[in-house]
Amino acid sequence: MEFITGVNKKDTLELNDILNGDYIDKTVKVNGAIHTIRDIGEVAFIVLRKREGLIQCVYEQGKVNCSLKELKEGMTVEVEGFIKTEKRAANGIEVRLAKVKILSEPAAPMPVPISKWKLTSNLETLLDLRPVSLRNIRERAKFKIQEGIVRGFRDFLLEQGFTEIRTPKIVSRGAEGGANIFKLDYFNKKAELAQSPQFYKQTMVGVFDRVFEVAPVFRAEKHNTPRHLNEYTSMDFEMGYIDSFEDIMAMETGVLKYTMKLLQKEYQKEIKILNITLPNVEKIPTVRFDEAKLKVSEKYNRAIRNPYDLEPEEEKLISKYYKEECDADFVFVTHYPSKKRPFYAMDDPDDTTYTLSFDLLFNGIEITTGGQRIHDYNMLRKKIAERKMDEEGMEHYLMIFKHGMPPHGGLGIGLERLTMKILGLENVRETTLFPRDLSRLEP
Amino acid sequence: MEFITGVNKKDTLELNDILNGDYIDKTVKVNGAIHTIRDIGEVAFIVLRKREGLIQCVYEQGKVNCSLKELKEGMTVEVEGFIKTEKRAANGIEVRLAKVKILSEPAAPMPVPISKWKLTSNLETLLDLRPVSLRNIRERAKFKIQEGIVRGFRDFLLEQGFTEIRTPKIVSRGAEGGANIFKLDYFNKKAELAQSPQFYKQTMVGVFDRVFEVAPVFRAEKHNTPRHLNEYTSMDFEMGYIDSFEDIMAMETGVLKYTMKLLQKEYQKEIKILNITLPNVEKIPTVRFDEAKLKVSEKYNRAIRNPYDLEPEEEKLISKYYKEECDADFVFVTHYPSKKRPFYAMDDPDDTTYTLSFDLLFNGIEITTGGQRIHDYNMLRKKIAERKMDEEGMEHYLMIFKHGMPPHGGLGIGLERLTMKILGLENVRETTLFPRDLSRLEP
Repeated sequence: MEFITGVNKKDTLELNDILNGDYIDKTVKVNGAIHTIRDIGEVAFIVLRKREGLIQCVYEQGKVNCSLKELKEGMTVEVEGFIKTEKRAANGIEVRLAKVKILSEPAAPMPVPISKWKLTSNLETLLDLRPVSLRNIRERAKFKIQEGIVRGFRDFLLEQGFTEIRTPKIVSRGAEGGANIFKLDYFNKKAELAQSPQFYKQTMVGVFDRVFEVAPVFRAEKHNTPRHLNEYTSMDFEMGYIDSFEDIMAMETGVLKYTMKLLQKEYQKEIKILNITLPNVEKIPTVRFDEAKLKVSEKYNRAIRNPYDLEPEEEKLISKYYKEECDADFVFVTHYPSKKRPFYAMDDPDDTTYTLSFDLLFNGIEITTGGQRIHDYNMLRKKIAERKMDEEGMEHYLMIFKHGMPPHGGLGIGLERLTMKILGLENVRETTLFPRDLSRLEP
Repeated sequence: MEFITGVNKKDTLELNDILNGDYIDKTVKVNGAIHTIRDIGEVAFIVLRKREGLIQCVYEQGKVNCSLKELKEGMTVEVEGFIKTEKRAANGIEVRLAKVKILSEPAAPMPVPISKWKLTSNLETLLDLRPVSLRNIRERAKFKIQEGIVRGFRDFLLEQGFTEIRTPKIVSRGAEGGANIFKLDYFNKKAELAQSPQFYKQTMVGVFDRVFEVAPVFRAEKHNTPRHLNEYTSMDFEMGYIDSFEDIMAMETGVLKYTMKLLQKEYQKEIKILNITLPNVEKIPTVRFDEAKLKVSEKYNRAIRNPYDLEPEEEKLISKYYKEECDADFVFVTHYPSKKRPFYAMDDPDDTTYTLSFDLLFNGIEITTGGQRIHDYNMLRKKIAERKMDEEGMEHYLMIFKHGMPPHGGLGIGLERLTMKILGLENVRETTLFPRDLSRLEP
């Protein structure tokens, strides 16, 4: 009888193994994709692309078991060679080739020069070619940083006693209603794609007190902007037994501090490749919505047109204000008007025109909406009635309040937007592997 | 100017703080939901439900700032009291109450007795009442174990150099085609919900070599069985530079070993609550598909009806066989017939009737399908042509092979099924927070 017992060490080395120095002047095996071949006559430099980075191999005429002509960019190979220190190589080492085994061959050369440092084609072309343009070192580094952001969110919240949950994406009724809903037929019933896990995460507060979910959400918004996607990743948390909605902002600040430390520590390579400076999150200023509008109006001499909403231009100016006043990259804007928040938002008991809610702005763009929710059954039903909404279809949501819920609140962070701003980019498509927008359903 | 600087310690304690012993004979504050009230005359026992478990509070007439009559099950409260050791209490300690502050009140009593140890209502009733039935201690423990399974999968793969990815769920064409597809209108284009991240995860192997994703997948299967869901969580990984498809089975064995250790270490409380024994994953037997059919046919005296497929009954018998022969809970069945695998499966060069693929059976049920994929552009196109499939709509998938892909393979694990089998349950709905099936779209 045969058994599988787990992962066995391979005789091919990974880049980190080689770079720790133990293999200098030794013969090793390495595999990878041929990223570039530069033939300068007697020798040729063959750079392999591996998941951890690039490694330079030296092909010397007559010393290798294959002809240089047999090799081409885009092949994947397993090579054997001798490790030498070499100052001019990117990592300070190179592999003097002895053997090359071809693992696979491309059928055609790359449609974009992925081995260039920066891809200069326009975004639409790069997105059309995403399946291969992502092989560029800088392109892929963006998504490694994105991985780190999600890790930071998750690891910090697990430490803080949160439970990770998974809620359905096919739902019978959207949490927030409205027009931006993708509809589908579910075995002859009307169904929708979830715009947010709002109802479910609140439900789970009744079970685990503190919960989070990182999952896709769907918004059928009929406009293409650099900051909207029709499918994006929402990092949601919801927490019970809060004393005030400041507890939620404190938790988010904690998440961001932890995440920046994690990126600094474990994603240094990508930070260097992308040449970015992580934002300052040690302390995040907080300002009331109405005050923020006033401050910006005064300082930048700009009339307030709509007292109940923030225009994108105002979000930019509020960020500018706090950057100038206290070098802050982030700012919490609190107490949004009730009429601009969903029915489940908790009104401020001191002035019910406003809610106990907030947005977090990051260098001019909203990356989070959050706040305290109504937890009292009768108060919630009253609000639903006042808004002339229908309780039908909300029975399961109302059930949790009927049978008792703690004071609670939470937030959602748009992962792609947060990644975009951390990387200093201008279009959220750049930080989505395979973006979905009004005109793009492929790749 | 005001700032938020991160999470501050609260003066209310969590259960783990209290249980470490530092607070015995001290006065503390604790919050929670009133799980039960048992009035035995001079004293009453009030059990609070917190995220980490239950804590017993003792109400003594005249010693508390509120009347016992004011309190009821389902309320959330913050209490102040004196911690005493008490052998008869579940955790060996209890809180002698001095003050009770009511945080919230239910509007009606629970529709199911959630404070009972086991909920005995039938599954459909419990699912209808899921938003509150999950508050039962055993019900919620199942989903804590599920959290641990995902953590194990993720943490082990990150250690092994995998990158976490997020791929779109609205797609223009399903990876595996077929009838079981949810269709939707995407701004007047035909779109589908992803049945699997197959094409995308293969694409990302060209970028990061090793990738994983834990995300929802959607299957419009028109039958209700105890092991099918129409939306479930797929734990997928895909890895490049494999020497053979055994590398994939080895990685999965590694995942399972790591996960069981993590559960054993960090989810001991839930293991006890659910009274389960974790399966043995130290070594997993492996057997060819055709041999497995033969062995089972001989040992259990059962005629082989279809040589190209495994019937559910045969899956059960194969598991029974390996349980009897070598006390194995898991068995890899390898070399599935080519005609039963998708076009991208790599045929066995020694006999192209079969593929370099496998299923993993766990106590009679398939929890994983995996295998090596075709990585050669021309071989893949030939297979597509042989199957009389259409390349239209697959241009972006074919692109990755055209420009070079390493030998690779991967698998998908059904999270809810794996959880179900670990917990020894019989219906996959029991291990899904809010299941979706042919007749269930709510809650």
